[in-house]
Amino acid sequence: MCFSGLTETEIKAIYNDAVAVYNEAKAKNLKLNMARGKPSAEQLELAMGVLEALKCRSQFLSENGEDWRNYGIWDGLPEMREIVGNMIDVPASHVILGNNSSLALMFDAISRGVTHGYNGCKPWGKLDTVKFLCPVPGYDRHFAITEYFGFEMINVPMNEDGPDMDIVENLVENDESIKGIWCVPKYSNPTGITFSDEVVRRFARLRPAARDFKIMWDNAYCVHDLTDTPEKLLGIYQEAEKYGNEDQVFIFASTSKISFPGAGVAALAASEKNVKALKKHFTTSTIGPDKLNQLRHVLFLHDINGVKELMKGHRAILEPKFRKVCEILEENLGELGIAKWNMPNGGYFINVDVMKGCAKRVVKLCKEAGVVLTDAGATYPYGKDPGDSNIRIAPSFPPIEELEMAMKLFCVCAKIAAVEKYLNI
Amino acid sequence: MCFSGLTETEIKAIYNDAVAVYNEAKAKNLKLNMARGKPSAEQLELAMGVLEALKCRSQFLSENGEDWRNYGIWDGLPEMREIVGNMIDVPASHVILGNNSSLALMFDAISRGVTHGYNGCKPWGKLDTVKFLCPVPGYDRHFAITEYFGFEMINVPMNEDGPDMDIVENLVENDESIKGIWCVPKYSNPTGITFSDEVVRRFARLRPAARDFKIMWDNAYCVHDLTDTPEKLLGIYQEAEKYGNEDQVFIFASTSKISFPGAGVAALAASEKNVKALKKHFTTSTIGPDKLNQLRHVLFLHDINGVKELMKGHRAILEPKFRKVCEILEENLGELGIAKWNMPNGGYFINVDVMKGCAKRVVKLCKEAGVVLTDAGATYPYGKDPGDSNIRIAPSFPPIEELEMAMKLFCVCAKIAAVEKYLNI
Repeated sequence: MCFSGLTETEIKAIYNDAVAVYNEAKAKNLKLNMARGKPSAEQLELAMGVLEALKCRSQFLSENGEDWRNYGIWDGLPEMREIVGNMIDVPASHVILGNNSSLALMFDAISRGVTHGYNGCKPWGKLDTVKFLCPVPGYDRHFAITEYFGFEMINVPMNEDGPDMDIVENLVENDESIKGIWCVPKYSNPTGITFSDEVVRRFARLRPAARDFKIMWDNAYCVHDLTDTPEKLLGIYQEAEKYGNEDQVFIFASTSKISFPGAGVAALAASEKNVKALKKHFTTSTIGPDKLNQLRHVLFLHDINGVKELMKGHRAILEPKFRKVCEILEENLGELGIAKWNMPNGGYFINVDVMKGCAKRVVKLCKEAGVVLTDAGATYPYGKDPGDSNIRIAPSFPPIEELEMAMKLFCVCAKIAAVEKYLNI
Repeated sequence: MCFSGLTETEIKAIYNDAVAVYNEAKAKNLKLNMARGKPSAEQLELAMGVLEALKCRSQFLSENGEDWRNYGIWDGLPEMREIVGNMIDVPASHVILGNNSSLALMFDAISRGVTHGYNGCKPWGKLDTVKFLCPVPGYDRHFAITEYFGFEMINVPMNEDGPDMDIVENLVENDESIKGIWCVPKYSNPTGITFSDEVVRRFARLRPAARDFKIMWDNAYCVHDLTDTPEKLLGIYQEAEKYGNEDQVFIFASTSKISFPGAGVAALAASEKNVKALKKHFTTSTIGPDKLNQLRHVLFLHDINGVKELMKGHRAILEPKFRKVCEILEENLGELGIAKWNMPNGGYFINVDVMKGCAKRVVKLCKEAGVVLTDAGATYPYGKDPGDSNIRIAPSFPPIEELEMAMKLFCVCAKIAAVEKYLNI
């Protein structure tokens, strides 16, 4: 596979070229960052209308005469619940709005499991062992939450159509200490794949040994398409209902990558029974979410069509960046067999697997030349990629010319690391 | 005391008059609410400038070129930390900004104690018994949090100068299972008193048996004065530092009753050591607070003087309402000796103690005539007022003419309940 058909002399020539280019680049004192899936300033401009949406006074009164500026309304503005419900295929009555961070709602859900437990089971904090399944590679901030609470995290391989469900079923159905699984079901972070209908159905009919098992369904990229033919994710909520398993699913979403990353609206969707239980939690833990920010979003987005229209703007900015990354990878590494990657149809990441045992080295080389990537290993629990090969590329934030420079350097580093490994330099 | 100097016939006449007025009022189908300390619509108009504050693009960049619209900045906008720091007499570097709810920050602090513990001690969730001191009467939503986590709540009497510190010290210094105390140190909810310097100092030098004891210092009414001579609260943070006890204090505040109750900026202030530890917590649990709302507040308020100026507007609306309540109480109940109350110099409540064993009855009578008060007992843990005499009046929300009607009815109900009790009717 690697360097197939090349002689050692040819490989050494590749190495020498790469080192020369690397040293040249290093001398430029670059300062580029492809570490985090942050929208670019250009994207943020798309949503400036959100900030101009609140003007006249009558807008602040609900049908019942409640003032959105005041306390209360624990589950948020009905109109915004409707919009989010349409984004994630869940009825608005099952949607609870939070503040700006869906991650905070996830943390909260885990924390609640630890302090109060679910389904009348013992709180997780009272158990000696709590395990959580982590499809890998996956989202580092999910893993950070379960690590923070001291859960034992178990890697599950991601396939082209979602997590390996044979393994998931086998583990979940036989181990009562497994209390949940993290999922990014559409344009998965970082592999970019969307769970197939069959995988969603297998999730929906899971029969866990633990009665308090929770599927943490982080639908972060529900409307974040990059092509004319968006991938379609089967609605887990409706599927789970068919098997009476709807209490098992917590669905998360936000407008962070629709309006503003730091000032969007986050949501949690859950079954009727769960919503009822959550009311007690939310009315104890807060005076209610920021309804004015929800109102801003309603006035700016209007409805799901407003969301879709806005997402076209994001796509127009993002798609060329994603294409550029893949082009550069293809041009520079395409024939060498030392890396694999995908061009995703949506989401925020390009997943690159460099030669086994080389990811850390590539990230280090890049860093020393001024290009910051997501840490090697970050896509695995405890930051430990057993193959040391996975690197998450986040093309969204840098301007395209910086992206180009950074990706070229990345390819050079991938070559250097691969030859070092291959020839044991 | 009660009805002193009156004959039974005179008392019966009072009763008959009161019942007649009550029945008349009841026929009017009133719908008035004095239950919650919500600012009125008129007050909310004072802060409309907050919503118009975000206009031009350059405003979104920090000194380091960070974009306030994007992810990150876990502790919030420096300028807003400065404003809040000045509100509560804590250096800005010790202030962490949250989203819209200081209650959420308090819940979070308790929850963190349960899941992770403080000062390297066992998490509270791993202990059989956790106790919390609750000065009474106090704030129902504080008590709701500690009840939600299953803590045993211990009543501590409130005096004119704060909680009874002999009792607090004795309990805290001898019982390791007591992990904290709730305080509203200025214009206390509901009694309206401000802790004296001596009480603050005794808090600052507490030597709890529990190494993980926390003073939950909810400075909700730090700038909410109703007179020209604001009461001055000694800075607990500086005092605690003198005794090396600064890690023991969590200070909370928000702009909920300055700008918008549902869309203000909340804050937690803590020691250097605690802030460092909290960074790990907050960077795990959220993508950061809503910095645009903080920016709105900075642009509107400018600095602490802007806050003070705005609070004058609130005072102008609130003061006549508070005065009206006290006038009506004085006029109707002044000579009967069946109720005690205070005219506070700030805050949001007037605390009324009706005749022992009558509070529930008064609230019920009011409710049946269309006037909703805070539930009798709500100001005590578990909703149990042992004397059944405390009622919290919240004059802020209703327009003054409604307040007048409601308070007159309240007085009538207080008379009815008192005579019923006194004459055993």
